[in-house]
Amino acid sequence: MEQQALVSAKKIVRYQGDHAVTEEDLVVVELPLEIRLGFGPAHERVQRSISVTMRTPGHDLELALGFLYTEGVVKSLDEIAYIEHCTQVKSPDEFGHVVKAELKSGIEVDLAALSRNFYTSSSCGVCGKASLDAVEVQGCQVMPWDGTFLSPACLNTLPEKVRAAQVLYRHTGGNHAAALFSRDGELILLREDVGRHNAVDKVVGAMLSESGLESAGKLLFLSGRAGFELVQKAAMAGISIVAAVGAPSSLAVELAEKFNITLLGYLRDGRFNVYSVPERIRA
Amino acid sequence: MEQQALVSAKKIVRYQGDHAVTEEDLVVVELPLEIRLGFGPAHERVQRSISVTMRTPGHDLELALGFLYTEGVVKSLDEIAYIEHCTQVKSPDEFGHVVKAELKSGIEVDLAALSRNFYTSSSCGVCGKASLDAVEVQGCQVMPWDGTFLSPACLNTLPEKVRAAQVLYRHTGGNHAAALFSRDGELILLREDVGRHNAVDKVVGAMLSESGLESAGKLLFLSGRAGFELVQKAAMAGISIVAAVGAPSSLAVELAEKFNITLLGYLRDGRFNVYSVPERIRA
Repeated sequence: MEQQALVSAKKIVRYQGDHAVTEEDLVVVELPLEIRLGFGPAHERVQRSISVTMRTPGHDLELALGFLYTEGVVKSLDEIAYIEHCTQVKSPDEFGHVVKAELKSGIEVDLAALSRNFYTSSSCGVCGKASLDAVEVQGCQVMPWDGTFLSPACLNTLPEKVRAAQVLYRHTGGNHAAALFSRDGELILLREDVGRHNAVDKVVGAMLSESGLESAGKLLFLSGRAGFELVQKAAMAGISIVAAVGAPSSLAVELAEKFNITLLGYLRDGRFNVYSVPERIRA
Repeated sequence: MEQQALVSAKKIVRYQGDHAVTEEDLVVVELPLEIRLGFGPAHERVQRSISVTMRTPGHDLELALGFLYTEGVVKSLDEIAYIEHCTQVKSPDEFGHVVKAELKSGIEVDLAALSRNFYTSSSCGVCGKASLDAVEVQGCQVMPWDGTFLSPACLNTLPEKVRAAQVLYRHTGGNHAAALFSRDGELILLREDVGRHNAVDKVVGAMLSESGLESAGKLLFLSGRAGFELVQKAAMAGISIVAAVGAPSSLAVELAEKFNITLLGYLRDGRFNVYSVPERIRA
């Protein structure tokens, strides 16, 4: 598989006041990725396109794996026979932009669980309570407390560690990052993407494939705001601490409360707000 | 219809270094909105749920209208008999979170045009070129130039005008804004939402219902980055100038070039970059 470019050079006109200069600028690459799922018994396999997401190329297989897991399509890595870039595409241009996940024979798949649709299923409804209940229906557990604490001093070191690792952002300023930290503030892995939900899926996919989802004691860092869908992905991945540089939404806070997730917002410049379960933090 | 709250008070712990204070904070409300579409001939009307989006309540009908238009489901306001909040919901909690648009009898609807799916339709494929072609298939036209110019001095006044009008953001710091400006820098309307695509849909919906889509000579301002899907919505709405506070993506720039849209990024602090069609700007 040919390496896909992450940045693209564009000719721009840069204005400062009235003064204009023509020059080259790097922008982050955004291209669609289609995720296909193969499933069913051996004698009647089905292949279905289940998602198209606008993403930055790179770590596509982790993205697909993280997506399948955090959206509740698969319950564990064991259900997947393999994930690969599809070689059967309609034109050469599509190479590298279609990923196929083949489930093991006999694994049943609940496509209704795909979150963009499942809020509207007959059992769920579309209010805030229904959205929270639906996450529970997907199999999320209330996060236990493992008896350890996070210190504010340690938390305040995270933004600088992320900034130092955001290679793509340094060149384009146009993408998000998600990062996984250990409880003592060590950066385990970081992924960048034009879509913030994709960055989280890539992190969860990498966590799953590298360590079999040892999410206990880990912290998910978000370079932007903490909306419902991002905290939902953390809940699905069993991550009990989410720290965002930006603000959370109401439903994100309510979801964090429901599943005993410690949710931090505005983590920057030596300060942060704790929106839920502050008991995990101690100076 | 009861007025839905836009902000929610949460008890938080605010840390500055090691120092913790417990207090109240306002977060932006995020709740799902379901959009249903009624269509078909008089004797066999069909009702279909076509979207659930996580949005900030308020201007729901504009949001639905803008969504239907920018996603290519309807071609004009004339195709819609009425849009209203649904009264037939499963539980009282859902009141205010389901909007129904009834198309006029005889209007045919192309649900395959819904963008999250249409990239994967058999004719389109999933590479960058296919994504750009798909926008054309939806009926987008290349934007003509009306012979007028925008001045850098005028453009540099826009961020402050938006900041002054972002009431929700001032209280929560947790949402995006989209705004419509006249060619001479007058703020026509501004909408705020936890989802940046929703903010754009609300603006387009308001533009449609208030002025019948007089998009000529108007500028769309985005408080965040300019991704493909946002520039696509501008293209569908016939808006020829898009100015974002943040960075654009590669595919957003290519889409702007293809449809002759002037795309500005990093518009803040008296400066900006022009990524496409700089000819519309003159000091």
